[in-house]
Amino acid sequence: MNRILIQDGLIIPMDKSLADGGELHYTGDVAVEQGKIVAAGPEGTIPADWKPDKIIDARGKAVLPGFINCHTHAAMTLFRSYADDLPLMQWLGEKIWPLEENLQSEDVYWGTQLAILEMIRSGTTTFADMYFFMDQVAQAVAETGIRACLSRGMIGVAPTRDEALKESKELVRNWHRQAEGRINVMLGPHAPYTCPPDYLDKVLEMAAELTVGIHIHLAETRDEVRDITKQYGKTPIRLMEEVGLFKFPVLAAHCVHLDEEEIEILKTHGVGVVHNPESNMKLASGIAPVSRMLEVGVKVGLGTDGPASNNNLDLIEEMRTAALLQKVSMQDPTAIPAYQALEMATRLGAAALGLSEEVGVIKPGYKADIILVDLNQPHFYPHHDPLAHLVYAARGADVDTVIIDGKVVMENREVKTIDTERVYWEVEQSARRLAGR
Amino acid sequence: MNRILIQDGLIIPMDKSLADGGELHYTGDVAVEQGKIVAAGPEGTIPADWKPDKIIDARGKAVLPGFINCHTHAAMTLFRSYADDLPLMQWLGEKIWPLEENLQSEDVYWGTQLAILEMIRSGTTTFADMYFFMDQVAQAVAETGIRACLSRGMIGVAPTRDEALKESKELVRNWHRQAEGRINVMLGPHAPYTCPPDYLDKVLEMAAELTVGIHIHLAETRDEVRDITKQYGKTPIRLMEEVGLFKFPVLAAHCVHLDEEEIEILKTHGVGVVHNPESNMKLASGIAPVSRMLEVGVKVGLGTDGPASNNNLDLIEEMRTAALLQKVSMQDPTAIPAYQALEMATRLGAAALGLSEEVGVIKPGYKADIILVDLNQPHFYPHHDPLAHLVYAARGADVDTVIIDGKVVMENREVKTIDTERVYWEVEQSARRLAGR
Ligand SMILES: [Zn+2]
Ligand SMILES: [Zn+2]
Repeated sequence: MNRILIQDGLIIPMDKSLADGGELHYTGDVAVEQGKIVAAGPEGTIPADWKPDKIIDARGKAVLPGFINCHTHAAMTLFRSYADDLPLMQWLGEKIWPLEENLQSEDVYWGTQLAILEMIRSGTTTFADMYFFMDQVAQAVAETGIRACLSRGMIGVAPTRDEALKESKELVRNWHRQAEGRINVMLGPHAPYTCPPDYLDKVLEMAAELTVGIHIHLAETRDEVRDITKQYGKTPIRLMEEVGLFKFPVLAAHCVHLDEEEIEILKTHGVGVVHNPESNMKLASGIAPVSRMLEVGVKVGLGTDGPASNNNLDLIEEMRTAALLQKVSMQDPTAIPAYQALEMATRLGAAALGLSEEVGVIKPGYKADIILVDLNQPHFYPHHDPLAHLVYAARGADVDTVIIDGKVVMENREVKTIDTERVYWEVEQSARRLAGR
Repeated sequence: MNRILIQDGLIIPMDKSLADGGELHYTGDVAVEQGKIVAAGPEGTIPADWKPDKIIDARGKAVLPGFINCHTHAAMTLFRSYADDLPLMQWLGEKIWPLEENLQSEDVYWGTQLAILEMIRSGTTTFADMYFFMDQVAQAVAETGIRACLSRGMIGVAPTRDEALKESKELVRNWHRQAEGRINVMLGPHAPYTCPPDYLDKVLEMAAELTVGIHIHLAETRDEVRDITKQYGKTPIRLMEEVGLFKFPVLAAHCVHLDEEEIEILKTHGVGVVHNPESNMKLASGIAPVSRMLEVGVKVGLGTDGPASNNNLDLIEEMRTAALLQKVSMQDPTAIPAYQALEMATRLGAAALGLSEEVGVIKPGYKADIILVDLNQPHFYPHHDPLAHLVYAARGADVDTVIIDGKVVMENREVKTIDTERVYWEVEQSARRLAGR
C-alpha cells in the first residue's frame, strides 16, 4: 500500500502565510506515494494514470498537515492527575520527583506508548520529547509509526551529569535519523538553572561533534529569571547567548519572560520557540509574548509540555488556548487570528524543530503527515469558516484519520499500530506501583 | 420506563464543599424514579425490592450531575465562525447585527435545536438563554427534553422596547414552569448600557408582578464601566443596586470588572454571577475575579456565552479554562482547584440560577439530571484522580450518557430526542440565507 489517494476533501495546505492573501483552503485531492506527497490540488490535479492502492473518501472532512507538539515529556502520562493545584516546588519536590526516582525503563516505554496513542488520536504526527530512558521512547516511536525529535534530559548539577552526556551520545549514535528517518535526536540540557555554563560547554562541544540541535527550557518562570540574573548578572536568554548556545539549532521551550531585546536575540539566531499555554497557565508561570514574537518573525511552535501539568496532549486545545490567552492578555481580540494559531500548530512548529523542509504543509515533495478532521459534528455547523471552526470549536476527538510518513496509523478513530488495551493495562500497573496503591 | 438504576459507577455527587472534607467520590449506584433521584450510595444502598425498568451499567464511567451552562444565546450557533478575530464593535456592527436583523422565527428554532444537540452531547443538562423569538426556544426545549431558564432579551433603547416587555410577559404566561417544569422564565434586560434606569423600572415592576428573576449582562468590558460611570456617576453594579435590581433574584453574566466593594454588593444581595472565560478571552474583555468572588461566597456559575464568541458550547472546556485562567492571572497554581471548577459547573451553577433545591447534585429528592463520562479513553489513564481528569484532561466527547428529568436523552452518544440530520440540514439552509451564500 504505497499509494494513497485522499479524495474530495477540504484541503487546508498551510503552505502560505496570511500576508500572501488568496484562498487558504480548497476542495480537492492529495496523492501520497512512498511516504511523500506527490500531488495536491483541486479536482483534476492528480494525473488520471496515477493509480492508488487505497482511496480515502474525504468528503465532509478537513484535510490538513498533522499537528506538531514541539515540547513534551511523554512518559509523564504516568503522573497525569497524580498531583494538581499545588505550588510548583511542592508539586515537583513532594510529588513528581519522588515518583520519577522509581521509574524503570518499562514504565517509560508504556507511558510513552500511552502518550503516542493519545497524540495520534488527537491529530499529532510529530512530537519533541525530553525525558530519560530515551532508548525506550525511541523504541515506542519506531513501533508506533509517529515522528519525533528526542532528547535525553540532562541535569548538570545532578550526580547523573556525566552519564547523561554519555547516554545522549549513544542516543544520537543509535537513533538519529533512524526508524525510516522519523526520529531526530537533539541534546537536552534541561535549563540554565540546572545546567551551569561549564556543563553547557560540554554539551555544545558534543553538539558540534555530532552535528545535532539542542532542546532546552528557557525563561519559564519569574523565579528563574530572577535567580539566573542574580547569579550571573544577566537573564537566561542573554546568558545562553554568551555561552554560545544559539550558534546551534535550538528548540527553546517556554520563553515566557522576555524583554524586547531578548525577542530580537531569539529572532537573530533563528531560535525555535515553543509556546505551552496550558502548562504556563496551570503552573501559573505567566503569559509569553507570542504575538510580539510572531510579529518580529520568531519561529513559534506549540507544545503541551508534560501531561502532568496540562493534563492532556491535545494540540487543538493548545491552539485555541494560545489564541484566546493572547487576545485577553494583549486586550486585543484581533491577536492571533485562527489561521496564525493553525500555523503555530503545523508549519511554524516544523520550522521550530528544524523540519521545515520535511513536514508541516501539504505540498508535493513534503513527507505525508496528514490528518482528516470529521466536520460532521454539531459544533461544526453551520459551515461558515473551517479555519475558525478548527481553532475555536474543534476538539481532539474530531480527528478521524491520521497518516504519518505515508502510512495510515489511524482510520475511523482506530489506531492501527498500538495495542490499546495492553497499553491501558501496563500503564495502570506502572502507575499503581509508582504511586504505591 | 420510570425507574432507572445506574449501577457500579464512580459517583461524584458534588453534594459537599471542599471544606467539608471526606470522600468526594465513591463506587456505587443511583436509583431514579419519576424524574427524581430516590437513592444514591455504595453497593447495597438501593433496597433489594426496588425493581428498575432499565439498568445502566456504569462500570468504568464517572456519574455526576449534568453540567449547567448559566449564560448563552443558543441560536447564535447560526453565526458560529461567521466572523472572528475582529474588534468587538466591528464584529457586532458589521457582522452579527446585520444578520440578526434578518433572523426569522424558524431560524431561531433550528439554531436552538443545534445548540441543544451540542449541549446534550457534551453533558449540559440545563442552560440559561437570552435571545428573541423565545417562543421557538421554549418549543425546542420542550421537545428535546433539556432544562432551561429562558429570557427574552430586551433593549430599552431600541424601537422594540415595548414589544419586548410585552413578549416577556407572554413568555412568562405561556412557558414559566411548563414542559414538565423544565422551563423557568426570567426577564432579560440586556445590560445597563442598553437599558436606562427608567426602562429598568418597568422591568422591575413586571418582575414583581410576575414573581420571576432577572437575567442581565453586567460589567463585561472596560468600556461599559467607563461609559456608565461617566453617564451616571457610578459603576454598573452600583447603578443596578440603586435602581433596585438586586431586590430580585438576579443572574448577572460576566462581572469581569469589579472592585472589592462591588463583590460585597453581589454577595450581600445573593446575586448569581456567570463566569464566561472563553468569551471574555476571545473578545478581550478581561479576566473576572472569580477566586475572590468564590472566597467571599458569591454564587459563581459557568457559561459559554453565545457560540459566535466561543465558538462551542462545551462546558468541560469552560471549566478547564476557568481553572487555568485564574491560576495564571492570580499567579497562583492553587487557585480554583479541580473540585471548585466542577462545583461551578454543577452545584454553584444551579444556585446562580435559583435552582439549588432542584438540580446540580446527586442526592435523593433532587431531579435526575445525571451524566455518565466514559473513563476508558487514553487521556484518562492512569486513573489517579477522576476529579482532576474531568477538569484538566476531559473533553465534551467523553460524555456518553445523559439523563434529564429522569429521561435518557442520550445513550452511547446517540441523542434520542433530536433528528440530527434534519437539524444539520435546516441550520445550513438558514445560515446560507442569512449569510447570503
Ligand atoms: Zn517541559
Ligand atoms: Zn451574553
